[in-house]
Amino acid sequence: MMSEYITVSYLIEAKNLHKKAESIAVGMTVGSWTDLPLARQELLAPYLGTTGNVTIMEERNGLQKGIISIRYPVGNITPDIPALLTTVFGKLSMDGKIKLLDIDFPPSLLKQFPGPKFGIAGVRELLGVHDRPLLMSIFKSCLGLPLGELETQFAAQVEGGVDLVKDDEIFFVDDKAPLANRLTAYNRIIEASGRTVLYAVNLTGPVHQLVDKAKYAIEKGANCLLLNVLPYGFDILHRLAADPDINVPLMAHPAMAGAFYASDEYGIASPLLLGKLMRLAGADMILYPSPYGSVALKQSEALAIAEHARISNDVHKSSFPVPSAGIHPGLVGKLYDDFGMDVIVNAGGGIHGHPGGAADGARAFRAAINTVVQGKTLAEGAKVSKPLAIALEKWGGA
Amino acid sequence: MMSEYITVSYLIEAKNLHKKAESIAVGMTVGSWTDLPLARQELLAPYLGTTGNVTIMEERNGLQKGIISIRYPVGNITPDIPALLTTVFGKLSMDGKIKLLDIDFPPSLLKQFPGPKFGIAGVRELLGVHDRPLLMSIFKSCLGLPLGELETQFAAQVEGGVDLVKDDEIFFVDDKAPLANRLTAYNRIIEASGRTVLYAVNLTGPVHQLVDKAKYAIEKGANCLLLNVLPYGFDILHRLAADPDINVPLMAHPAMAGAFYASDEYGIASPLLLGKLMRLAGADMILYPSPYGSVALKQSEALAIAEHARISNDVHKSSFPVPSAGIHPGLVGKLYDDFGMDVIVNAGGGIHGHPGGAADGARAFRAAINTVVQGKTLAEGAKVSKPLAIALEKWGGA
Repeated sequence: MMSEYITVSYLIEAKNLHKKAESIAVGMTVGSWTDLPLARQELLAPYLGTTGNVTIMEERNGLQKGIISIRYPVGNITPDIPALLTTVFGKLSMDGKIKLLDIDFPPSLLKQFPGPKFGIAGVRELLGVHDRPLLMSIFKSCLGLPLGELETQFAAQVEGGVDLVKDDEIFFVDDKAPLANRLTAYNRIIEASGRTVLYAVNLTGPVHQLVDKAKYAIEKGANCLLLNVLPYGFDILHRLAADPDINVPLMAHPAMAGAFYASDEYGIASPLLLGKLMRLAGADMILYPSPYGSVALKQSEALAIAEHARISNDVHKSSFPVPSAGIHPGLVGKLYDDFGMDVIVNAGGGIHGHPGGAADGARAFRAAINTVVQGKTLAEGAKVSKPLAIALEKWGGA
Repeated sequence: MMSEYITVSYLIEAKNLHKKAESIAVGMTVGSWTDLPLARQELLAPYLGTTGNVTIMEERNGLQKGIISIRYPVGNITPDIPALLTTVFGKLSMDGKIKLLDIDFPPSLLKQFPGPKFGIAGVRELLGVHDRPLLMSIFKSCLGLPLGELETQFAAQVEGGVDLVKDDEIFFVDDKAPLANRLTAYNRIIEASGRTVLYAVNLTGPVHQLVDKAKYAIEKGANCLLLNVLPYGFDILHRLAADPDINVPLMAHPAMAGAFYASDEYGIASPLLLGKLMRLAGADMILYPSPYGSVALKQSEALAIAEHARISNDVHKSSFPVPSAGIHPGLVGKLYDDFGMDVIVNAGGGIHGHPGGAADGARAFRAAINTVVQGKTLAEGAKVSKPLAIALEKWGGA
């Protein structure tokens, strides 16, 4: 039987990239090779990594810089992200200048990860919205506010026509508005609206109890869950997605992601971290920095994340990209041009900062979305939507 | 009542560090402040972050670079590392050039984290070794080897006098030598030796089941557990350490740590990541790159990790620092000078690569340790230990 491989590419600097690649392929799998007796080589051959492409981009001061790829036998790992990351970027992450760029999975391994349970089509189905980008809003803030104030914020967002509302990701201490109470109160508002609105409640608590906590939240009425995936570890997202009783969409927040992706020389590239791995582990919706705001990602990276989230791979459903931060109604045309139909427009300040309040903020966004989907300019939309006209006046972008 | 604060320092670049600090203190806690009505300010005051020291180190091209500290009210988070990291380095990690340097915890918060269950004194007690650095060895490799070969490796290491042996951290697929079988086989070897040897078995599997898996391993005879803390997330270490039924020492592997600490401009500083947080979460022993080998950490960082692991804080037991990689017997004097008595000398190649085999490799280390503890030079030790003499000839360092 032919071995199947996980192909991993790294941006790396070393004296000799070919030798370095060879030493990684052996060192991160069977440990040593050429000095092994033949019988041992036969025994370990199925576990031996091999060197793929080596591309030298630059040579300077006796150092080569470039991209190498290493093939790890798929049988070296159990099908979970901790095993994967420990194997392909455990010790290696500490071995000089090296950045993990990409991982290609054989279908046999992909199939052992859950991927999104709902995906883009499933989330659209829940909302009954098929012909436009979705609109999500963020609470202006959550921490320390009594339930009544949060209800007011929630109601305004729903009134304006958002499809989804999410908790603030730093909402851990919720004694003034406990999860079960929020769910009851918000669901009452949703019901009264006559529409479906997904409310992503922040899933918090000890990691080994999060699956049970998620079930508790669902029992209390949660129709969507928000998770700070990286601080908790990818594996718990995987376990939530793989559990058939957790029958609501999962929204992944990128908290702490910058610690991995921001350096050009170290860490893990954002398209892999926030695109491929989030989807593999089961995120139905993936938040990440938009290329527009002050907390911005390079345009190429933001697009690559969306591509990984949505590309057809015959195994997993696609995830909704949610490029966030700095979004106001004037950017909706650009967002639509860059990301297309299957994107979630997500705004905080761009909704709450509307001179007419959050409801008008949401109305402005909905008008902007409807306008660009019809192929019209935002200026045209502003003629028929006063909230949009006011938003464009405030933020520009017509 | 006076609020208590978590004080967090960042290395950061921005146009104006004072303004940036102010915007973080507000933005990462209550969201906005100056524009709030008085009643709302009164309500939110207990949750408001404040600015601490701002030290401008450099001004260039209209940008200031320096260290800022932000005080977050301790009541803003639940006492767990995901809440902590999401709050102090969630969105912020993605906000331009910023590195999380350090976190100072008020004792009230420290007390809510488990810290090491055994600590240095407890591990020494288990081993009955109080007057010298401990010696640990790593399997030459584990992946793909049948149990018989692993037993042979294990026996040689024990024969030579190591105090601890650990699994390879990439040992996930163990179908040829399942955990329970390894424990039975190795414990037989330990028993036959008449000494106590701690064997750190790699704890793997779905993260929400790791507490149960740890209990299973202990039931099967495990006397120590190894965990790839960062790929699984800090919280599961916390939960293992906090569980009274997990009554064996926990060893933290730094797999993937370089993705966080290696950049000077982004990520999380290694003394915080591998020293403070690992101890807080409950690691009895902390592996990390030594300052000596090819996979090396700066000397100052390696020492700072050890300091955080061992400094008296009146709340938590201290953790054993295990500066690893590139260690051979000739380095033991330097290791002892740099790290003192309460350190674990950890070697792989430096034991298995001994010309007389792994048992002699361990003997050479034990001789080196005994020699330096007596204030003698390794050359003196080599006069009474042939394995040490051979090791010094091979690796140098006399």
